[in-house]
Amino acid sequence: MSKKNFFVKKGFCQESANDVIEFVRKGMGFMKFVTAKHGERVFVGVVLEQMNMVVDLPKADETIPNVMLDCIALGDLFIHKVEQLLRTPKEEWMYRLENVQLLAPIPRPSKNIFCIGKNYADHAAEMGSVADRENMIVFSKAPTTVIGHEEPILRHEDVTGQLDYEGELAVVIGKKGKAIEKERALEYVFGYTIINDVTARDLQERHKQYLLGKSLDSSCPMGPWIVHRSAISNPNSLRIETKVNGEVRQHASTEQFIFKIETIISTISKGMTLEPGDIIATGTPAGVGKGMNPPRFLQSGDVIEITVENIGTLRNRVQ
Amino acid sequence: MSKKNFFVKKGFCQESANDVIEFVRKGMGFMKFVTAKHGERVFVGVVLEQMNMVVDLPKADETIPNVMLDCIALGDLFIHKVEQLLRTPKEEWMYRLENVQLLAPIPRPSKNIFCIGKNYADHAAEMGSVADRENMIVFSKAPTTVIGHEEPILRHEDVTGQLDYEGELAVVIGKKGKAIEKERALEYVFGYTIINDVTARDLQERHKQYLLGKSLDSSCPMGPWIVHRSAISNPNSLRIETKVNGEVRQHASTEQFIFKIETIISTISKGMTLEPGDIIATGTPAGVGKGMNPPRFLQSGDVIEITVENIGTLRNRVQ
Repeated sequence: MSKKNFFVKKGFCQESANDVIEFVRKGMGFMKFVTAKHGERVFVGVVLEQMNMVVDLPKADETIPNVMLDCIALGDLFIHKVEQLLRTPKEEWMYRLENVQLLAPIPRPSKNIFCIGKNYADHAAEMGSVADRENMIVFSKAPTTVIGHEEPILRHEDVTGQLDYEGELAVVIGKKGKAIEKERALEYVFGYTIINDVTARDLQERHKQYLLGKSLDSSCPMGPWIVHRSAISNPNSLRIETKVNGEVRQHASTEQFIFKIETIISTISKGMTLEPGDIIATGTPAGVGKGMNPPRFLQSGDVIEITVENIGTLRNRVQ
Repeated sequence: MSKKNFFVKKGFCQESANDVIEFVRKGMGFMKFVTAKHGERVFVGVVLEQMNMVVDLPKADETIPNVMLDCIALGDLFIHKVEQLLRTPKEEWMYRLENVQLLAPIPRPSKNIFCIGKNYADHAAEMGSVADRENMIVFSKAPTTVIGHEEPILRHEDVTGQLDYEGELAVVIGKKGKAIEKERALEYVFGYTIINDVTARDLQERHKQYLLGKSLDSSCPMGPWIVHRSAISNPNSLRIETKVNGEVRQHASTEQFIFKIETIISTISKGMTLEPGDIIATGTPAGVGKGMNPPRFLQSGDVIEITVENIGTLRNRVQ
């Protein structure tokens, strides 16, 4: 029996349960958390990617909240609950992946998304700038910017003539902390996802502070899921690639970070409390549209795909 | 019987009810909305300032939410409910003002607070800059910065040596909108409050983008209340004054705005949806500590009082 058809048959025999346990042990897709929609129902789920299934967690255990922010706030208890559930999986908790719509894993963050500017030297250079290796640039995107995998990016042609993409690894904070030491920073991470920090370059430049140019509605595609930190041994060494209409535009590794994730968390939290569910986009490598000669900005119909190693691929089309 | 003792006696006769109605008609303190704490209970209230009382709205009408953001989201229905209640006031809904603690009117905004930079020409000048009259500067403060009237501002001496104050009129958005026309912008306002945009000047300068220097915990004192827009005939003509330890440091009028409130709302909402409960701090006039020669930054024990005409006074001490 193929994996794809595994859960289709009625009922669950011991062998099939063992097969799921084995599957989970191998880590093939375990700990990919989604917010998803099945019919009218929105729920928090775990994707078993290679089996093409998604587990509806609050359906399986009603003590699991159906909002991702609340799940993350439960801390390790949430992870333990999920682990327990996947030991005795039941068919009625699951949907085939193609039968659900993935929303952004955190569809409505409880504050603006933190973003790091110029965290790759070659991106700073293509923007006609020099990366400051001492002082991190931090700006934000309003929560109203967030959309999910495969949701359309609005073109905003009445507001900007220079819509651009930025493929980025994003960190999701798992626990409250202030003045977090670098050495312990990764303990404060819940997991990792992908963000397209869509930017109106003309607004970004004209208004000096980046907020307006970074906060157009739909300018923060996020997803397709959050991979739990246990699945990522070193977030400062992941390949990242952005394609536009199939053409590779950005190709780099988070090894090239000027500020590693530990430094980012430590710097932001120096005088500001970080909270569970906070999202930090870690900056984009070289290869944005603005950096080309001549610049190539996004047009209606363009498809942007951002792939980060061990996480997945986030894909969105410009409307 | 003095106004102060008005509600102290047991029971409510028709004359006293009429007195409240008359009081409300005259607009003396009506439509000052607070989030307040009485014992362990946190509630949304209306302050009858000159009577020194606060009405516990959800206690008076259980269909009124006890979170300000939810009240604002009700739109005109909320205002109608409050008007109804104050026609037949009951003693058991009220506390004496000195018996409650005022929290920030919106203790936890649902996104970062929008802030306008350099919106008074003389402030831009004292910062060694020239105001850009074409392109508004917009940055943000994290929601974790918010504190209420009389709550202590943390000194953060391990993070900054240049803590500074900025007295500002703030706008609270009352209804969802995008691409809002200037002509209709004030219809999107719920009310007005006061914000102290406390700033770490060294961080602001060093990190280029303002977010970190503007987002230290406790760096957004807000309050003491939100005055409903019906009580402010022209928000672009209000006197604003900031005192530090009793000494007048800022003294201006919102007539000096480079970008009026209508322009601010219209500009921000061009490509970004504004939502009920969004807060926009409108910028600070000349007279900040950094602008003095030599600069005079905030020290432990300093008391900052910001008064805006027809709104009130926001006071906080540096811890």
